[in-house]
Amino acid sequence: MTVQLKNDRFLRALLREPVDRTPVWMMRQAGRYLPEYRATRARAGSFMKLCGNPELACEVTLQPLARYPLDAAILFSDILTVPDAMGLGLSFEAGEGPKFASPVRNEAAVRALPIPDPEVELRYVMDAVRLIRRELDGRVPLIGFSGSPWTVATYMVEGGSSKTYAHIKAMLYDRPDLLEELLDRVTRATLAYLSAQVSAGAQALMVFDTWGSVLTPAAYKAFSLGPMRRLVEGLPREHNGQRIPLVLFTKGGGPWLEAMADTGCDGLGVDWTTDLADARARVGDRVALQGNLDPSVLYARPEIIRERVAEVLESFGKGNGHVFNLGHGIHPEVDPEHAGAMIRAVTELSPAYHQPD
Amino acid sequence: MTVQLKNDRFLRALLREPVDRTPVWMMRQAGRYLPEYRATRARAGSFMKLCGNPELACEVTLQPLARYPLDAAILFSDILTVPDAMGLGLSFEAGEGPKFASPVRNEAAVRALPIPDPEVELRYVMDAVRLIRRELDGRVPLIGFSGSPWTVATYMVEGGSSKTYAHIKAMLYDRPDLLEELLDRVTRATLAYLSAQVSAGAQALMVFDTWGSVLTPAAYKAFSLGPMRRLVEGLPREHNGQRIPLVLFTKGGGPWLEAMADTGCDGLGVDWTTDLADARARVGDRVALQGNLDPSVLYARPEIIRERVAEVLESFGKGNGHVFNLGHGIHPEVDPEHAGAMIRAVTELSPAYHQPD
Repeated sequence: MTVQLKNDRFLRALLREPVDRTPVWMMRQAGRYLPEYRATRARAGSFMKLCGNPELACEVTLQPLARYPLDAAILFSDILTVPDAMGLGLSFEAGEGPKFASPVRNEAAVRALPIPDPEVELRYVMDAVRLIRRELDGRVPLIGFSGSPWTVATYMVEGGSSKTYAHIKAMLYDRPDLLEELLDRVTRATLAYLSAQVSAGAQALMVFDTWGSVLTPAAYKAFSLGPMRRLVEGLPREHNGQRIPLVLFTKGGGPWLEAMADTGCDGLGVDWTTDLADARARVGDRVALQGNLDPSVLYARPEIIRERVAEVLESFGKGNGHVFNLGHGIHPEVDPEHAGAMIRAVTELSPAYHQPD
Repeated sequence: MTVQLKNDRFLRALLREPVDRTPVWMMRQAGRYLPEYRATRARAGSFMKLCGNPELACEVTLQPLARYPLDAAILFSDILTVPDAMGLGLSFEAGEGPKFASPVRNEAAVRALPIPDPEVELRYVMDAVRLIRRELDGRVPLIGFSGSPWTVATYMVEGGSSKTYAHIKAMLYDRPDLLEELLDRVTRATLAYLSAQVSAGAQALMVFDTWGSVLTPAAYKAFSLGPMRRLVEGLPREHNGQRIPLVLFTKGGGPWLEAMADTGCDGLGVDWTTDLADARARVGDRVALQGNLDPSVLYARPEIIRERVAEVLESFGKGNGHVFNLGHGIHPEVDPEHAGAMIRAVTELSPAYHQPD
């Protein structure tokens, strides 16, 4: 922890402090679009073994940094490590997505859920964080993360991915008290998990709320935003004298940006369906904004990618508080050269937005 | 056509005229949640054979009317009949969704697309419309429909359903001119198709834009809303002296309701992620609103369903211009008794919202 951070653009931008250029990273930057990732994953044998092995998780976390001038690393892990540690039996079947052996659908199952000790049941994640920090050696900050309690709960109740959210929506409408109880446990487990990541060395935190947007406005506020507010209020915002910025991201959460900013978090992830100019006008200088290139722009030619990067930078405009990112994870079929074209465009075009007037 | 309509609540509400109670119908009301539908479909042999057989399509269109006091019937068909008629070779594999044998991915494929003659290649649809009108005998109006050109084009270019829209997004960003040309053909085909439905007897029209919400705000306006505006401008709004109301529905289109209302359509479908009170405040009295109960509420107990129906009615409030519906299609696993509970609640609770002050 005594190593001096050589590039703190990302942290400064999240705290809306001046930077020389807009920092950039990519959601899922350690992922399947990279041949070196696919090779390490093949060596690990499965996605879960890759997540569970700190040396291999560290290796894939660092891979994109070797290719691109990124301004942050993000822990390679999965949002479902927490319910797995609660004993739900996570597996990934090829092409099928995640499956839980024991979905949580009644009072007995909810009340049986333990709050895992992050340094015991999730020790492999904390070991990965410590190892990555050592290997990063202060080059860029490391982002820790979790799923939002609502998003994690959808998988726990449905038993995997879902199109209709039949089981958790039935619980939401029929037994809101039971859903509250489930979310309370997941929130407490997530608080412990993210706090432990900070103790282990995470220098910023991000909460991924992938499925908040399947809710009505009232249900979003009660069941997705409510637990995220508890995270914002309960998490350490400083560690060893350093601020630990916290970013909330609800995919499709454009209509709820004001309410999200009101939680007191430092930054908001914004997907590509909302204009950054509009988002900025709405949240003012309360929070930084992270985003929001359509990930599908990376299917286009490099010169087109550059034009679209220019549009996103122009849409946020001059001043502090922008972290460039895709509006969602990079797609597995993207050519790594195209990701490079995006990052190069940000590094070349963004200094103009950080000149003193 | 000389039969007098016995129940015109639905048409009057879409034109924002007074009604005695809020009219109600359900998207996918002729569908898999009904055992009698599953029996007819089994008899047909496949989904496409069911769509392609006017007698069977008529039979399933009328099934929900026999069970529930619905205020409208909707033609049983599919949004992909148009590209199928363009020669793309549509099939539905069990559990796989739609597949096109010949996706449209280059200039030659786009330029080879014919504009089908609705009374030739799509005659089976028009025959179904005529037959349903005859069998309805003026009980309730019949809604005709199509997909939005953008939504239909996503299936044509991807070759089926998609998670990432890799091919059409690559076309959008790399070759917007080619996408425009494709959308122009689909728009012309859709204009002919919907116009023919009106001539055959459809008394209202609805355009389903299921995938407009995967676009950036600028791309939505150019590629999804733009072609829908051409439909609004080009479609017959009157037939045999009767107004033919037109409803646009972009799923997840909450942020774009004002722009959608500006097209000059009569009504907007609203999904459950937007409050009707908020939607109504934004569109004023320019359009009627159709929606917006979360379809997953129907997983809950009947007394809960009634409470949630009351909330939706209260959210729209008093006055003209509300058509009650789900915010999206009814889920296949729903108990038909629960759909009945929703419809009963609307008929019982809504008259209070239509009393003179």
